[in-house]
Amino acid sequence: MAATGHRAAPEHTHPDDVTVANALAALADPVRGTLVRELAGSADWTRTCGSFDVPVGKAALSHHFTVLRAAGLVEQRDEGARRVNRLRRAEFEARFPGLLDLVLRGD
Amino acid sequence: MAATGHRAAPEHTHPDDVTVANALAALADPVRGTLVRELAGSADWTRTCGSFDVPVGKAALSHHFTVLRAAGLVEQRDEGARRVNRLRRAEFEARFPGLLDLVLRGD
Repeated sequence: MAATGHRAAPEHTHPDDVTVANALAALADPVRGTLVRELAGSADWTRTCGSFDVPVGKAALSHHFTVLRAAGLVEQRDEGARRVNRLRRAEFEARFPGLLDLVLRGD
Repeated sequence: MAATGHRAAPEHTHPDDVTVANALAALADPVRGTLVRELAGSADWTRTCGSFDVPVGKAALSHHFTVLRAAGLVEQRDEGARRVNRLRRAEFEARFPGLLDLVLRGD
């Protein structure tokens, strides 16, 4: 895995180590809901952090991704200067059955 | 229905009129999670607002019940000086399948 960026590698939490309260809090935020829905519609590792259509600045976006990683929802890796993402769909579904589908339904 | 208390009758929102983001936010709070779990373990209309084992004051507790009503999770009615509660389990489940079960599982 190429991790040559200047940033520290992102820390991750596996969904098995996430409480239901933290999972719900991560998904309750509308910006994070949008990030999750856009990721669900994209192939793994194709979306950079700057590629999402959300009305927040860089620092806020970085915070949202930190929350999503800590909730076991998103995995990130650095490819050179790019940080790319994937939704941890299968493992999150195994831990919290049906929850992601409710968010992806999005009504 | 006896509604002779001095307070205004509580306002309710049906789960069908609740967004998934609001449902998740209501359930993400640990105090509200406890209220929902205790209600799920009690018969309808048997629990007064003061009967729950949560570490918050009266004003905060009242706010939590307002959020739970607005999220379609709790129905309240006044019986004389008592305000009693029921969990809207069936109608919430119909709107957000599986979500309440995740919270009641509580891990």
